[in-house]
Amino acid sequence: MSEIQKTDVVVIGAGPTGLFAVFECGMLKMQCHVIDALDMIGGQCTALYPEKPIYDIPAHPSITGGELINKLEEQAAPFDPVYHLSQQVTKLEKQDDGSFELETNKGTKINAKAVIIAAGVGAFGPNRPPLEGLLQYEGTSVFYMVRKREDFRDKRVVIAGGGDSAVDWALSLADVAKSVQVVHRRPKFRAAPESVSQMKQLDEDGKIELVVPYQLEGLKGEGDQISAVVVKDFDGNTRDLEADILLPFYGLSQNLGPIADWGLELEKKHLNVDPTTMQTSEEGVFAVGDIITYQNKLKLILCGFSEAAMAARAAHAYAHPGEELHFEYSTSMGVPSE
Amino acid sequence: MSEIQKTDVVVIGAGPTGLFAVFECGMLKMQCHVIDALDMIGGQCTALYPEKPIYDIPAHPSITGGELINKLEEQAAPFDPVYHLSQQVTKLEKQDDGSFELETNKGTKINAKAVIIAAGVGAFGPNRPPLEGLLQYEGTSVFYMVRKREDFRDKRVVIAGGGDSAVDWALSLADVAKSVQVVHRRPKFRAAPESVSQMKQLDEDGKIELVVPYQLEGLKGEGDQISAVVVKDFDGNTRDLEADILLPFYGLSQNLGPIADWGLELEKKHLNVDPTTMQTSEEGVFAVGDIITYQNKLKLILCGFSEAAMAARAAHAYAHPGEELHFEYSTSMGVPSE
Repeated sequence: MSEIQKTDVVVIGAGPTGLFAVFECGMLKMQCHVIDALDMIGGQCTALYPEKPIYDIPAHPSITGGELINKLEEQAAPFDPVYHLSQQVTKLEKQDDGSFELETNKGTKINAKAVIIAAGVGAFGPNRPPLEGLLQYEGTSVFYMVRKREDFRDKRVVIAGGGDSAVDWALSLADVAKSVQVVHRRPKFRAAPESVSQMKQLDEDGKIELVVPYQLEGLKGEGDQISAVVVKDFDGNTRDLEADILLPFYGLSQNLGPIADWGLELEKKHLNVDPTTMQTSEEGVFAVGDIITYQNKLKLILCGFSEAAMAARAAHAYAHPGEELHFEYSTSMGVPSE
Repeated sequence: MSEIQKTDVVVIGAGPTGLFAVFECGMLKMQCHVIDALDMIGGQCTALYPEKPIYDIPAHPSITGGELINKLEEQAAPFDPVYHLSQQVTKLEKQDDGSFELETNKGTKINAKAVIIAAGVGAFGPNRPPLEGLLQYEGTSVFYMVRKREDFRDKRVVIAGGGDSAVDWALSLADVAKSVQVVHRRPKFRAAPESVSQMKQLDEDGKIELVVPYQLEGLKGEGDQISAVVVKDFDGNTRDLEADILLPFYGLSQNLGPIADWGLELEKKHLNVDPTTMQTSEEGVFAVGDIITYQNKLKLILCGFSEAAMAARAAHAYAHPGEELHFEYSTSMGVPSE
């Protein structure tokens, strides 16, 4: 039996929103323990796209997922968060005194005054296209994420999908790959309009090729190496796209895991929260980032940051009832001194 | 009569939140005109504290007000915002087609599909302490803002106030000033708890002096140069603090200006908005940042960024009714491609 560690706040999830919650709690003098199922901090940013540039982090015209996490880790570091990695919270129980006892699948036990869930999509994995023989190529010529752009230098790359991943990687790989073809079953892409425009321009300029409307039909290849991706239009005509690499971007399958069992109110696999306190249906349990829903919720990292600031204040109010918090502004000017 | 310029969105206020609204609108392919009363962009960040470090901008462990604005300007630049500086919007009128006509005190006329008000505290100025002879020292030995820390190198500085400004500048100037004394009428400071702890440590280490509880009583000096700040405790005992510089940080007076006359619902001089769309009481007019209020609203720049993202989407829905917006995530992974 391991001893129970005590802390102010447990943050579940060490992605960007969770890390910023540590900073915001620290500014309110609350210490955090952070638990994540992955063996590193950063969540999807480090696990799925460490080298992918992100363009909408405020005051970072361009920053990769990896850099973003480094900066957030540095910002949280002065508040000495304790990280428990490679483990999942399996149990969350409210105590009579209003605090929470958490336990992980590795036997870590923590007692905390409040809990902030920042678990993103939960345990995540790619949605696989239903292609025969797919598994034999995975990890060698079929990838669901790009860890390093350089891995695809001078390769013939087929990208499948119509979302932001497909579009952003088409733009990013156009520079390094030998060829880039984007297969999507509709002419319309579900991605940032500005990025879609850029991609269409590359297509017009002959730098990439949009193969639309087509869908994936099969793979040709030998051993663990594909030689072509077979696609089909809606009249049943097929076409072979010669390729070394297939990157299917069909989103992530979402698996809330044990979080779904804690009695918190859910809506379509997301936690329902109050949009200005981030409190879930359980008093003292807050949630932020991609795992939550409220009216008009945007799944943007930058919104997660704001949610983390709100959750930290609400957690403080829960953990320290009646204690006034004289702290509001980011910056000095503007706070009346009395 | 100047011609009416047409655009998608007028952003009123070129502070950090207004600049980020330009970026967010740009990502949705909406062009912006930006109007500000100051002769430069950046609002308080550049006008009041260009060199003051800010610690709670996500993924910027420390950034000055000036750097923050430079980065935000760079991030918005690809979307070609048109800046109209040194002018105030005096008229805002809804047209029959749902668009808005705006006019400034310099005669600039703009027609926009939607309006985002990001005017901070409106036209702002410092709250002055009621001290005899104060005006004769302003700009030479009494300042309400710090433009450059270097201006105070080797000076004897008295800081008055108990908010974030007072505390942050005490910390920042401790390194360069000859001496720093902080006068506050209460022992308790209304500032970030972590910063207050640091300041108290400097006091204990003899690096600065906290003069509490005391209030300002008068100034001694000659010409435009003070020689001492007179303070008084609550028993009426006075004390002379020898000083070259007085920095009173009693917050800003707030003056909404013409915005108050547009018929928008106000609450304590702030615009009432829906917390998930940022819409004011007028359909098509949105507001973000320090000028707004909703339940649990935090006046943090980082929350303003998130509000700008929400306002941009809501403005798009207003300007382009019925048009679907397939754009949600900051990052690629996680968007289903269909």
